[in-house]
Amino acid sequence: MDGTVQAQTYLQAQTNGQRYWDSIHESCQWGATDDGGMNRLTLNDDDKQVRLWFIAEAEALGCKVTVDSMGNIFAVRPGKNNDIPPIGMGSHLDTQPRGGRYDGIAGVIAGLEVIRALHEADHTTYAPIAVIDWTNEEGARFPKAMVSSGVWAGKIPQEHAYDLRDVNEPDTKFVTELERIGFKGTTPASYKDLPLSAHFELHIEQGPILEAEEKDVGIVTGIQGMRWYDAEVIGREAHTGTTPMNRRCDALVAAAAMIQAIEETAVSLGGLGTVGIINSLPQSTNTIPGEVNFSIDLRHTDESKVDELEKAVFDKLEEIAKKRDVTFTHSMKWTSPALHFDPECQKALELSAKHEKMSYRRLQSGAGHDSGYTSYVCPTAMLFIPCRDGISHNPAEYSTQEQCSKGASVLLGGILRYDDMLAEKNGK
Amino acid sequence: MDGTVQAQTYLQAQTNGQRYWDSIHESCQWGATDDGGMNRLTLNDDDKQVRLWFIAEAEALGCKVTVDSMGNIFAVRPGKNNDIPPIGMGSHLDTQPRGGRYDGIAGVIAGLEVIRALHEADHTTYAPIAVIDWTNEEGARFPKAMVSSGVWAGKIPQEHAYDLRDVNEPDTKFVTELERIGFKGTTPASYKDLPLSAHFELHIEQGPILEAEEKDVGIVTGIQGMRWYDAEVIGREAHTGTTPMNRRCDALVAAAAMIQAIEETAVSLGGLGTVGIINSLPQSTNTIPGEVNFSIDLRHTDESKVDELEKAVFDKLEEIAKKRDVTFTHSMKWTSPALHFDPECQKALELSAKHEKMSYRRLQSGAGHDSGYTSYVCPTAMLFIPCRDGISHNPAEYSTQEQCSKGASVLLGGILRYDDMLAEKNGK
Repeated sequence: MDGTVQAQTYLQAQTNGQRYWDSIHESCQWGATDDGGMNRLTLNDDDKQVRLWFIAEAEALGCKVTVDSMGNIFAVRPGKNNDIPPIGMGSHLDTQPRGGRYDGIAGVIAGLEVIRALHEADHTTYAPIAVIDWTNEEGARFPKAMVSSGVWAGKIPQEHAYDLRDVNEPDTKFVTELERIGFKGTTPASYKDLPLSAHFELHIEQGPILEAEEKDVGIVTGIQGMRWYDAEVIGREAHTGTTPMNRRCDALVAAAAMIQAIEETAVSLGGLGTVGIINSLPQSTNTIPGEVNFSIDLRHTDESKVDELEKAVFDKLEEIAKKRDVTFTHSMKWTSPALHFDPECQKALELSAKHEKMSYRRLQSGAGHDSGYTSYVCPTAMLFIPCRDGISHNPAEYSTQEQCSKGASVLLGGILRYDDMLAEKNGK
Repeated sequence: MDGTVQAQTYLQAQTNGQRYWDSIHESCQWGATDDGGMNRLTLNDDDKQVRLWFIAEAEALGCKVTVDSMGNIFAVRPGKNNDIPPIGMGSHLDTQPRGGRYDGIAGVIAGLEVIRALHEADHTTYAPIAVIDWTNEEGARFPKAMVSSGVWAGKIPQEHAYDLRDVNEPDTKFVTELERIGFKGTTPASYKDLPLSAHFELHIEQGPILEAEEKDVGIVTGIQGMRWYDAEVIGREAHTGTTPMNRRCDALVAAAAMIQAIEETAVSLGGLGTVGIINSLPQSTNTIPGEVNFSIDLRHTDESKVDELEKAVFDKLEEIAKKRDVTFTHSMKWTSPALHFDPECQKALELSAKHEKMSYRRLQSGAGHDSGYTSYVCPTAMLFIPCRDGISHNPAEYSTQEQCSKGASVLLGGILRYDDMLAEKNGK
């Protein structure tokens, strides 16, 4: 790929920032909350309505829509060569219960905007182009995040997904709700039945870096390796007034030293380390805590660095436990390996950003995304746009119209460049 | 007072360790729990039964019993001079909901054992001798600890006490339950109406010092100054995966540094400092805590040292808050000034311990006791006996029969020596 020369090809197709913005907010009529946020839990009636709207919009642009057995919606605009799999632009239309209007939504609607721009310019791509709505990315209602891209990528058994229960109504299964809203398709949710040539995902950063560094977009190099642990410190309950300082086994003071050590170790190894949950017993002003439980979240860009971070952290915590005469135990409760996105997909986005004169930087994704699963089975990259104060999963989540618009135009250019590359590879 | 010479007087009166032990456990038939502990919340039916038993036992020994308007029971054995106020031996028969058989109970029953020993030896003291059961010392049911000795000492208004509500049934008032069990006496609960020449209280240490140092008894020099605070740290909630370590305002890491600083400062100033309660928000593994609330309990033997400790702690916490860019606020929610017990009362106990060849040490009480309130209006001292592992407020609370027995004999000797001193003062 060579951005300078080939960019000429695409000059006619242009995304329309206002149209994109309007569509984001039009789609948010289903599930909007009074505080400007969104509450559109997957497979509820609002999700059904926005899915029907999305399909109608895509079909009006000449797309052929397929709903797979997990409710994933593939809206495909034909290309010159429909024998090769489409280049996908996927994200999700479901939200957290107290979510915002950009996480996921901005990605799906950006895909729609790219299709509209191609339609408007009457430009037929070499490969077909797909916009995809992945079901239950958030995992907020059925607690397994990114479950439907996971099934599609062959990483999660469909029967497991079907049996997921509504967190608030354990009698309600995922599959029952999928059928109820009419989105259990007949095509198997599998990359074998619905292959993609590539997967691109525009997403809000959900972090502060692009905003702080005043970058228009971020080209995502991969997803950090993440490990979650439950930790427990057992000391000895005792009376705060009658127990001399040198005769205490205070589980909370030990945990406090550990919390600080996790931070220090993460900083020194260039990773991330966080204690998000802490519970202390017996929670009495005049009783020295005898038991403290806490969560640990460790992340690093490379899997070997996650190993290193894990070892350093737990060595340190064991040392603190020994010094303070408390018992420390921990167990891993979840892990997600570090993933690296496809260099050619990244390159397509980078050439587009340069051509559009957008400032950009490469960065890692700290959160999981459907693109994590797609990256196992097709070339994948993500494009981040800045969001205010790095806030997401919150009604205050916000990206400006300009930030969204810039993202959509870089996405369009990236898709067209990747399409050109596919044409070249196929000798066209 | 001179222990060596005067001790001759009292040789005939001896406490009986077995009888004392049996009475402790007899009194525990009301409110006993299957795990060997006690659940005798103040003014419940079990408390009524043990009160009736206590009165019957005291009356059988020739005591005159007065119940005051707070339900405090004064069982008085007449002396030679009944124009002077009795020497009191008080503690409490109520327990924590998951309490033990010694906290409070050992003190009241020790008083009864002293009376029995005097009765058996047919020894008439110069001053009358009283055994007192103070109502609601624990404050576990009606949350104001030591409220009835507080009313008696004129430090708490009786109408405030009467209006206290059952923690589990807010419609139930203290005064209603007092009337229901028939223990709202007509004599005003006041040191003016029911004066004492002195107040002695045998109590389990509720700490580890006597056991660790293998002392038979502890002569208590006073009660530490105590201050309780609510503290709050406000940082900024953010995603654990997308927020670089150097862009965080993690309220929990800041609180962890504060918890450590409280310990360090207390150690360096020879006081006690504890965080017993901690709550963090929003309690999610992948969200950096934005808010942490915690309790602070500071104690020192002298009031000026409490001031010094308070200043040093909060200076340090403010410094941490500033360094970590979080907001820190705190408010005092309770304070109890440092109290110093009467030297003559202590001396009487010390002479008795020496005479009985008991090992002893002086120590401060870390916890509050009814003796704190009595010390405002009459000479007061306490006698601690060891308890296993320093544990109290727990079914595992335990002192051996020997430890109890040694305490009772020192108490008897102390009372007799103080009685002699009163006789001397009155020229008898």
